[in-house]
Amino acid sequence: MSIPVTAKMVNDLRSQTGAGLLDCKNALVDASGNVEEAIMILRKKGAASAAKKADRTTREGLIESYIHVGGKVGVLIEVNCETDFVARNDGFKTFVRDLCLQIAATSPLYVSREQVPEADLAKERDVATAQVLGKPPAAAQKIVDGKLEKYFSTVCLVDQSFVKVPEKTVKDVLTEAIAKTGENIQIRRFVRYQLGS
Amino acid sequence: MSIPVTAKMVNDLRSQTGAGLLDCKNALVDASGNVEEAIMILRKKGAASAAKKADRTTREGLIESYIHVGGKVGVLIEVNCETDFVARNDGFKTFVRDLCLQIAATSPLYVSREQVPEADLAKERDVATAQVLGKPPAAAQKIVDGKLEKYFSTVCLVDQSFVKVPEKTVKDVLTEAIAKTGENIQIRRFVRYQLGS
Repeated sequence: MSIPVTAKMVNDLRSQTGAGLLDCKNALVDASGNVEEAIMILRKKGAASAAKKADRTTREGLIESYIHVGGKVGVLIEVNCETDFVARNDGFKTFVRDLCLQIAATSPLYVSREQVPEADLAKERDVATAQVLGKPPAAAQKIVDGKLEKYFSTVCLVDQSFVKVPEKTVKDVLTEAIAKTGENIQIRRFVRYQLGS
Repeated sequence: MSIPVTAKMVNDLRSQTGAGLLDCKNALVDASGNVEEAIMILRKKGAASAAKKADRTTREGLIESYIHVGGKVGVLIEVNCETDFVARNDGFKTFVRDLCLQIAATSPLYVSREQVPEADLAKERDVATAQVLGKPPAAAQKIVDGKLEKYFSTVCLVDQSFVKVPEKTVKDVLTEAIAKTGENIQIRRFVRYQLGS
C-alpha cells in the first residue's frame, strides 16, 4: 500500500531528521510513503556517511560543563568537530549539553568500548563464562556476548541508552548529529566528579 | 612608637582578614597598633590553626566549573570542607570560583608538590644540577633548590602566585580561607581541558 508523498511529509521528515530535502523525498518515495521506514533509510544513509567521515580531522569543537544543583556532581566534556562554524551551531551546542546531562545522570566510565582496560574486560568475560558453564557452547557464547554488551551499555557513554530519548543509544544520537552537521564529530574525553567519592 | 588601638582599627582589620574580633584586638595590641604587623601575627596564627586542622575529615564541599568564552578552555574542580554549612557560604564559593579562574589562566598540572611524579622531579633536578657544575657545593645546592621552587611555583596550583592578588600564593589564600571558615579545606582535584590539546 503506497501513500503519495506530499511536500508537507517531506518537510516534516526534514525537520525530524535534519537530512536534506532531496534525501527526505527519495527516502519517502523508497519507503512508499511510510515515515518510520523513511527514517530508517535516512538513518542507514546517515550511518554510512558517518563512517565515511570518521577519518576526517576534528580540531574544533566545544568544551562544556554541567554542575548539578548544590555542587555535588560535576561534568566536564570535550566534543570535537571539523569547523568552528559547526561548534557555534545551536544544534551542536544542545548535543554537547545533552551529553553532559547524560554523564551526570548515568556515570559512564569510558567514551567507547575501545577504552575499557583489557583486564576489566577479561574479568567481565570470566564472570559471564562461569555463569554459563554446562550450556551448549554456541548458546553459551551468545549469552556471554549478550552479557558483555550489557556491560558496555553500562560503562561506555556511546553504548548507553540516551536519557532524553531512551529508544536511542548515544551512538545513534551522535550519528544523527554527524548526518545533520555534515561533519565528523568525536566525543574526545570527559570527566565526572562526585563530591567525596 | 605605640598607636592606641581603636574600635575602628579592630573592625577594619577584621573585615580585611576575617579573623575574630578578639583575635584582631589582641593582634593589634601585640603589634603596638601596626596594622601590617598585626596581619602577620594573624596570618601566623591562621597558619598554625590551619596546620592543626589539616587532619580533620573533609567530606563536604563544592564541585565547580569554569568555561572560558567560546568554549575553548574548561576547568572542573572539587574543593572539600568539613560541613555543608561552609560549602554554601559565599566566601567559600568565591574561593572555589577564584581557583577555577586561576587554573584556566595558569594551567597548573598538580594540586601540590607531593603529586609531582618522581621521574619528572628527578629530571628537573638533573637539569638544574647540570647548570651549576663547577660552583661551590653549598652555593650550587642553594641554586638547585631555588630552581626547583621555581618549577613547583609553575606546575603546582598551591605554589603558584594567586592571579587575583599576585603578592600572595594560592596556599596563602587557602590558609586564609581555613582561618576564616574555621574548617579544614582541601583542594582535592581538578582537571583543565584545552580544545584539541
